[in-house]
Amino acid sequence: MIAVIMAGGSGTRFWPASRRAEPKQFLKLTGDRSLLQATVDRIAPLVPIDRVIVVTNARFVDRVAEDLPDLPRENILGEPVGRNTAPCVALATAWTESRFGPDEVMAVLPADHYIGDEAGYRSVLAAAESVAARDGGLVTIGIKPTRPETGYGYLELGDEESAMQGHAVRRVARFVEKPDRERAMEYMKGGNHLWNSGMFVWKAASIRTEIERQIPDLVAGMNAFRDTRDLTAELARRYPAFPSVSIDYGVMEGAAAVRAIPGDFAWNDVGSWEALRDLGPLDEAGNVVRGDAVLVESHDCVVAGDGKLIAAVGVRDLIIVQSGDAILVCPRDRAQDVRLIVDRLAESGRDGIL
Amino acid sequence: MIAVIMAGGSGTRFWPASRRAEPKQFLKLTGDRSLLQATVDRIAPLVPIDRVIVVTNARFVDRVAEDLPDLPRENILGEPVGRNTAPCVALATAWTESRFGPDEVMAVLPADHYIGDEAGYRSVLAAAESVAARDGGLVTIGIKPTRPETGYGYLELGDEESAMQGHAVRRVARFVEKPDRERAMEYMKGGNHLWNSGMFVWKAASIRTEIERQIPDLVAGMNAFRDTRDLTAELARRYPAFPSVSIDYGVMEGAAAVRAIPGDFAWNDVGSWEALRDLGPLDEAGNVVRGDAVLVESHDCVVAGDGKLIAAVGVRDLIIVQSGDAILVCPRDRAQDVRLIVDRLAESGRDGIL
Repeated sequence: MIAVIMAGGSGTRFWPASRRAEPKQFLKLTGDRSLLQATVDRIAPLVPIDRVIVVTNARFVDRVAEDLPDLPRENILGEPVGRNTAPCVALATAWTESRFGPDEVMAVLPADHYIGDEAGYRSVLAAAESVAARDGGLVTIGIKPTRPETGYGYLELGDEESAMQGHAVRRVARFVEKPDRERAMEYMKGGNHLWNSGMFVWKAASIRTEIERQIPDLVAGMNAFRDTRDLTAELARRYPAFPSVSIDYGVMEGAAAVRAIPGDFAWNDVGSWEALRDLGPLDEAGNVVRGDAVLVESHDCVVAGDGKLIAAVGVRDLIIVQSGDAILVCPRDRAQDVRLIVDRLAESGRDGIL
Repeated sequence: MIAVIMAGGSGTRFWPASRRAEPKQFLKLTGDRSLLQATVDRIAPLVPIDRVIVVTNARFVDRVAEDLPDLPRENILGEPVGRNTAPCVALATAWTESRFGPDEVMAVLPADHYIGDEAGYRSVLAAAESVAARDGGLVTIGIKPTRPETGYGYLELGDEESAMQGHAVRRVARFVEKPDRERAMEYMKGGNHLWNSGMFVWKAASIRTEIERQIPDLVAGMNAFRDTRDLTAELARRYPAFPSVSIDYGVMEGAAAVRAIPGDFAWNDVGSWEALRDLGPLDEAGNVVRGDAVLVESHDCVVAGDGKLIAAVGVRDLIIVQSGDAILVCPRDRAQDVRLIVDRLAESGRDGIL
């Protein structure tokens, strides 16, 4: 199996730790390895490093190589411009076809998620590989909801069910947009919905068939990428003209046969500073602390420092972050609105701090 | 008139801006001049610099000289140990007697307060000088309460009233400890109480008489300081044995004749970060900002940075301070409890950051 790691993110929700020059996938938010390194580490028992490819923005190719010194340099694919995930998948598919042929199974994995139970995760991934190799079609890994989350998309499951290596294999009836709270509660209780984790497994030929049918604008580029001896030149020529579309919206929602394998391995998309509360560890007052902090009579906070001492007294449910030359303070329930600060800084021309 | 500026403070309530090596009087909390510099600046029209003396801890003598380059070096008196304000006043009295004789009027002024209406302040101070020179006795400057403050001591006024240069001169009936909220409200409405500002005016001979009567343990030291040619040696010999007592408690409360001149000149004792809200300026959302900050949907905060960008979204009534290698976050109504952080740091041996 090939692992395609999508590391093109340039998110702003971890500012000031994430910057334009150092987006989330390179941050050590969950331990002493970056999210990208941890992604490669956890699939290593299933996928040797020379079968890992990382797709990222061209300006991060050197940064990826720095994080992953054992990864062959030609396995780092630099997108000249960001075009969301469908062109990224098309590029990776072409690369896989050219090296390993159309029957090779690809696991497409985000570079910036956290997984608590890595053995459980690999077991699901191995089952997905077997399903994709045996049956063709598109396989997605869904996560059993543990809370009525309104920030994720969901997979609605059909009746059809089989099994592979001890895991259920379900037909996906449809993809569901982020629900409101009430609906999310129904989904959690009903047992017929999974979180859409953005992890996919399929043969190169299977995803090519769907791309050809649903996003024909990508096909000439895919063929060029597959056949060229100068990939960089082809990328520069073809990529800017690609439509910017996600693999979920552009392919998965309209695909003929999508199956899901439910996973239950402490997955977290690390979507904002608030996510660190889920990852822990929590101190006895419910605070998560990264770095140097003194918290007096303070509860349920996320505190992350990068060299400076963060001291607080009498606060609750706050996010307090120091990273380099900037400090962020916001309530936990405003974690998504860190982007408002980033927007304000961009508007006022303060690019140096972004 | 001599001005005696008491600059011995080593407070912790402005941590992390104030440090053991840089206490509050040296901070530029109210403008581009330190509180100590501003204190000297505002009396300059009344008291030329060679008649200003600063009493501070011996370890801050050089620091005071740095802040006040025009102040004659011999006018900086270094206490070998802190012994509260009564020994400080005794020392300054001895110095005044030796240079200018017992009839010289001294204004004793804290180094770390803020005064908004400097002309009004000087008018009151000049009136106090005239009262002290004409009548003898002890004169204190009281502040007309503008809110039911529970953090200050009060002066309860007697019936007797006269006038000097357009200012009322009142007999002080007694000194009142910090009141509870209800009583503070009565004081404010009643019009018969003033805040005790800790600013005093008297002839050297007047305060000597009261010290001799009430704190006889200071007298031998005072005489030695007045008569010696090696003040530093006498200070080292005498000071450590002095009782640690405030001029308010040790002398003013038991003094025979204390008069107060009510002042109304936007006085603030700059007692904690919360005080910056009173000093302003406030932005349209009620925030006070010192340094570089981006505040989105944030209200009624005190934000002070020292080189780093402080960014916040969705917060209210918070104090956020960055100074050097440390960051403080606390609710405004916990401003006094910054000392709990300082205590915790001291307990854990982190003296380097104090």
